[in-house]
Amino acid sequence: VLASWFRLKYPHVAMGAVASSAPILQFDDITPWSSFYDAVSQDFKSESLNCFRVIKAVWDVLDDRGSNHTGLLELSKTFRACKTVQSADSLSNWLWNAFTYTAMVDYPTPANFMMNLPAYPVKEMCKIIDSFPVGADVIDKAFAAASLYYNYSGDQKCFEMEGGDDPHGLDGWGWQACTEMVMPMIVSNESMFPPFSFSYENNSEGCLAYYGVRPRIHWITTEYGGHKIDKVLKRFGSNIIFSNGMRDPWSRGGVLKNISSSIIALVTENGAHHLDFRSATKDDPEWVVEQRRQEVEIIHGWIDQYNKDIAQM
Amino acid sequence: VLASWFRLKYPHVAMGAVASSAPILQFDDITPWSSFYDAVSQDFKSESLNCFRVIKAVWDVLDDRGSNHTGLLELSKTFRACKTVQSADSLSNWLWNAFTYTAMVDYPTPANFMMNLPAYPVKEMCKIIDSFPVGADVIDKAFAAASLYYNYSGDQKCFEMEGGDDPHGLDGWGWQACTEMVMPMIVSNESMFPPFSFSYENNSEGCLAYYGVRPRIHWITTEYGGHKIDKVLKRFGSNIIFSNGMRDPWSRGGVLKNISSSIIALVTENGAHHLDFRSATKDDPEWVVEQRRQEVEIIHGWIDQYNKDIAQM
Repeated sequence: VLASWFRLKYPHVAMGAVASSAPILQFDDITPWSSFYDAVSQDFKSESLNCFRVIKAVWDVLDDRGSNHTGLLELSKTFRACKTVQSADSLSNWLWNAFTYTAMVDYPTPANFMMNLPAYPVKEMCKIIDSFPVGADVIDKAFAAASLYYNYSGDQKCFEMEGGDDPHGLDGWGWQACTEMVMPMIVSNESMFPPFSFSYENNSEGCLAYYGVRPRIHWITTEYGGHKIDKVLKRFGSNIIFSNGMRDPWSRGGVLKNISSSIIALVTENGAHHLDFRSATKDDPEWVVEQRRQEVEIIHGWIDQYNKDIAQM
Repeated sequence: VLASWFRLKYPHVAMGAVASSAPILQFDDITPWSSFYDAVSQDFKSESLNCFRVIKAVWDVLDDRGSNHTGLLELSKTFRACKTVQSADSLSNWLWNAFTYTAMVDYPTPANFMMNLPAYPVKEMCKIIDSFPVGADVIDKAFAAASLYYNYSGDQKCFEMEGGDDPHGLDGWGWQACTEMVMPMIVSNESMFPPFSFSYENNSEGCLAYYGVRPRIHWITTEYGGHKIDKVLKRFGSNIIFSNGMRDPWSRGGVLKNISSSIIALVTENGAHHLDFRSATKDDPEWVVEQRRQEVEIIHGWIDQYNKDIAQM
């Protein structure tokens, strides 16, 4: 995101930009608000319809059993919580994060970006769910799947479900999202998550209460554009690669089609969140190798063009 | 200036820009610092070498005679000052402004932009100077010439030389020039003005003393570029017309050559400060009419292109 904006605002400083997994269209109403979680759900559904249905079913069960103290005590044990949880919502969030982040980092090779995970972790999660016997508890299935995310290495004795630290450093995002980076997102009935709505009013009140600021809803699109971006940049700007892997739910807010001869979309069907920017490994499938080769070739073209322009001085 | 920057920063808001007499290169060391006053001097020299020499000679004489109270009293009378001036510098500034602004507005038709003036006022000023008998006082000549600027209509009983108001609303410029819009300018020995130097240090101290701020010297070029602008914009950006009249001293800091097929320079040899933006008159020479016709044609092209792009959706 920042790379593409930097190139657009400072073409005299940056010769070009590779914006990998950049959801620059995840603002205002450019991209449907349900896209992100629909895409996460689609990732799971594409591996196994049963897997999708189990996850879709777990939220109500969790709310139901977690509605009293005895239920919370039992759930805390099932989830191997380090401390008994105060609310079933904590468990929902814990699962929610596991499924969402795993979809983002659904890499074709073992990786350690958010967490240490095997290749194609969504497929592996679904294998875990699908391997349970008929009639097994939906909560046991969901917990086992989420444990792939939180405990693939198997060394976690218990899990901090509430008030843990912020291992990924995502706290800064809250401030961004409450000031300039307002990305409206909802959960539709078709997704595997419990329905969730978004209103600018509620969002603004929340930001005021938490940070003492109100978001500037339209700042991003005012400063950087986004609406009709293909029409605007078709004849303006140059030298940007937008690369997206379609397994990454952020790809839904990305630029997925070429805009001009030098503002180029590179899309991989099985890619995930900035896969192209990860170190090469011996297990990389051919399509990742080819994507990186194309990017290097395009960047070389920019540099050659620049040198030719300079030589003509 | 602002039009071109607006187009570059907000291509999604403005379909194009006509930047008339826009000195976007009058920053840092992109344009020689002496260009502006060299150009003013050239305007006068091109009309009459004698005129140029008279003006070049007046400053020392003024300093000399104005160095004592009796001299200032006498000069105040010669200059028809409403109040006796405190310093010969005030008279120098008064003349300096007259010559500089007249060069800027050296329009081919009578106009009333800065002041009410006849067509080609530089030529008219030089005619006044050249019509004096041999041996006439250089100060009488300079005063008579400057009076064309301040009193072409002939209704001024006396002139406010010191502490007058700001009829052109130029006071705001001081703040701009002391914050973001730092345009370094000097007067070279070749010009008709008394030599004048510029240093960032002195400029900064002056701004601190007057406004309590220090200028951000490189802010403009950091935000908008400027260095190697032809190389940068050759393949980035679109739909800007840079129009310049070469009689306008600001044209020296302008874009005088086409950068790309849609970032176009329109240059008129005898044009002055944003002449193309002035209302058409029956006296307009053919080249002004043609310049405006070209601008309208280019703008029509932008709109047609936009409509075609939209129709292809």
